Amino acid sequence: MKDVYERALEAHRNWKGKLSVESKAKIDSKEELGLAYTPGVAQPCREIAKDRDLAYEYTWKGNSIAVISDGSAVLGLGDIGPEAALPVMEGKSILFKKFGGVNAVPIVLNTKNTEEIIQTIKNIAPTYGGINLEDISAPRCVEIERRLIEELDIPVFHDDQHGTAIVVTAALINSLKLAGKDAKDVTVVVSGTGAAGSSIINMMKRLGVYNIYAFNRKGVLRRSEIAFYNFVEKEIAEITNIEDEDITISEAMTKADVFIGVSGPNVINAEMVRSMKSKPIVFAMANPEPEIPYEEAIKGGAFVAGTGRSDFPNQVNNVLAFPGLFKGALQARAKKITEEMKMAAAVGIANLISEDELNPEYVIPSVFDERVADFVAKEVIRVSELENGRN
Amino acid sequence: MKDVYERALEAHRNWKGKLSVESKAKIDSKEELGLAYTPGVAQPCREIAKDRDLAYEYTWKGNSIAVISDGSAVLGLGDIGPEAALPVMEGKSILFKKFGGVNAVPIVLNTKNTEEIIQTIKNIAPTYGGINLEDISAPRCVEIERRLIEELDIPVFHDDQHGTAIVVTAALINSLKLAGKDAKDVTVVVSGTGAAGSSIINMMKRLGVYNIYAFNRKGVLRRSEIAFYNFVEKEIAEITNIEDEDITISEAMTKADVFIGVSGPNVINAEMVRSMKSKPIVFAMANPEPEIPYEEAIKGGAFVAGTGRSDFPNQVNNVLAFPGLFKGALQARAKKITEEMKMAAAVGIANLISEDELNPEYVIPSVFDERVADFVAKEVIRVSELENGRN
Repeated sequence: MKDVYERALEAHRNWKGKLSVESKAKIDSKEELGLAYTPGVAQPCREIAKDRDLAYEYTWKGNSIAVISDGSAVLGLGDIGPEAALPVMEGKSILFKKFGGVNAVPIVLNTKNTEEIIQTIKNIAPTYGGINLEDISAPRCVEIERRLIEELDIPVFHDDQHGTAIVVTAALINSLKLAGKDAKDVTVVVSGTGAAGSSIINMMKRLGVYNIYAFNRKGVLRRSEIAFYNFVEKEIAEITNIEDEDITISEAMTKADVFIGVSGPNVINAEMVRSMKSKPIVFAMANPEPEIPYEEAIKGGAFVAGTGRSDFPNQVNNVLAFPGLFKGALQARAKKITEEMKMAAAVGIANLISEDELNPEYVIPSVFDERVADFVAKEVIRVSELENGRN
Repeated sequence: MKDVYERALEAHRNWKGKLSVESKAKIDSKEELGLAYTPGVAQPCREIAKDRDLAYEYTWKGNSIAVISDGSAVLGLGDIGPEAALPVMEGKSILFKKFGGVNAVPIVLNTKNTEEIIQTIKNIAPTYGGINLEDISAPRCVEIERRLIEELDIPVFHDDQHGTAIVVTAALINSLKLAGKDAKDVTVVVSGTGAAGSSIINMMKRLGVYNIYAFNRKGVLRRSEIAFYNFVEKEIAEITNIEDEDITISEAMTKADVFIGVSGPNVINAEMVRSMKSKPIVFAMANPEPEIPYEEAIKGGAFVAGTGRSDFPNQVNNVLAFPGLFKGALQARAKKITEEMKMAAAVGIANLISEDELNPEYVIPSVFDERVADFVAKEVIRVSELENGRN
């Protein structure tokens, strides 16, 4: 039998694009044409010219987003350029529709210059109700997202940063519940200080986690060495490794209740898992090869283990977060996706699994659990209404 | 009964966007998800990374275009801004799908700066197989189109310039056939020296027309006054008014066989039509109020008359041109839409009406004539193959 890659190539050759743009308006007669196009179309134009918020009423803006990449950090493939990133952006777009009911169109950029990316996205932004950034390399992606959040009045969200963070936070909430531990008592080792690692660490801190050791390829981040870091790692160093320890990953693991990997293959082994505090929780999410294979983590005595892969229990898949998040943000007409919304989404995803169902092999709902997106959307809308009430 | 504007507003409120982005890939199971998205999607990415032309095989690029406007010259409404232009761009997009089978997505721009528009479109261009520019004010639109044609390797087409020009050229070919006149013997008055006027004049010259008088709001263009013109009018002045006459529109009409209006309402009257050479041909295409009402043109003795309106015979509607033109250019993988393709499209549209059917009230096919787009596409592909053979 052909492997998944051969079959995927064949499928893509047949699809010739996974997206189709369809008309919701019938235009089979002069009358219909005159409503959807000239002369009738002039009327919504005039109305929107008077009040541009009416674009949400009369155009696709209220339920459409762009999925934008510069092709610089695509899957595990690295900097493969805009055209080669397009199949992923199309894939992401159809997930938005399938799970969130949101129209999404791919845009791949012929520039990797931070300022030019920001300017280009600002220039096309009036077209969309939101912007999903995707597969842009760190630390540029963090700056691009922050600047766009600040300078645009529609939600901007870099899924590689926050999508995984939201879902692993959900997984952690349920894992701690099962282990009978409180977030404020646990120590976490995070391998990976890029976009995802940074967002995960921020959410862990919001969750109340006691201490975090963050490792990049060279070792643990320390605030005494902050001068050597990029701005993302600087921020991480300021809130992790509270005693500024010079510590190896093996040593840190002996102090840890939780390991979270968003780096690369074979960072830890079964022995290190065995050295962790009681009921070790291990989420090794590097794709396709995790920081420790699922079976190895279990062999090392992991109480809960999860990966990014669909062929093992507890798949941390950001498709659990982004469709509902944007669905909710668009429906609420939120101008930003706030920290509170992300945390509410994580809590929402966690709470979908009842206490009866919850077990070490089921701490995260299935990707195909149809309740997820609506549940997340409702949480986002609820928080948005609270926040608007506050303002 | 509600008028067309009220009904259109209501229809737009119900549609909430005339476009829907749909998935062609089924993603109902882990297996299907693994082909359309990770891990399988990595394979088309890798192939395209090796040869970016394969994006035409494995993504939507080969059959997808962007319909782009800065909202500076929308319909007869003027500079109404990007959001207010969106209903028109969505309308245009659904016409591309309906008549040409081409996926089209709207993009409205938050800038009117020429260089920034060019840079933005260049930055997003890898996403698409072609770019349709729309409703950008003159003369910027001409520069933007020329620069993009030069700097991009996908077809770029400003419909407001060439769409009308192609269709009125088709209409003129058939009108001259009916009148028994040869293009090289006729004199044409063109009212309007903007984007559309310029392209029409260029096509008239390629058709072999003897002399053209081009009028802007102030009067006839003369090469002796070239210093006062913008660059588009300069180019027009160089190929029109061959004897550099200081002439009014009433005087010019007495020498004319053909009047073509792409300006505004009430530029000529029945008396002027009566003063024209035998069998006057009048295409008054200002919308919604033509340069002379259809009935007035007939009253003045017009042999053939046409407008941009659907409620009179001979509607010059660029939907006859752009869907087939892009369909053909995309199928041929043409890097540009050339002058030869545009003329071939015009001849193709004209030839759809057989000699038996041809009559003064039927010199242009109906918008709903389903043969048109395929016929135009075939002509474009034929010319593209000839041009590639030449290179």
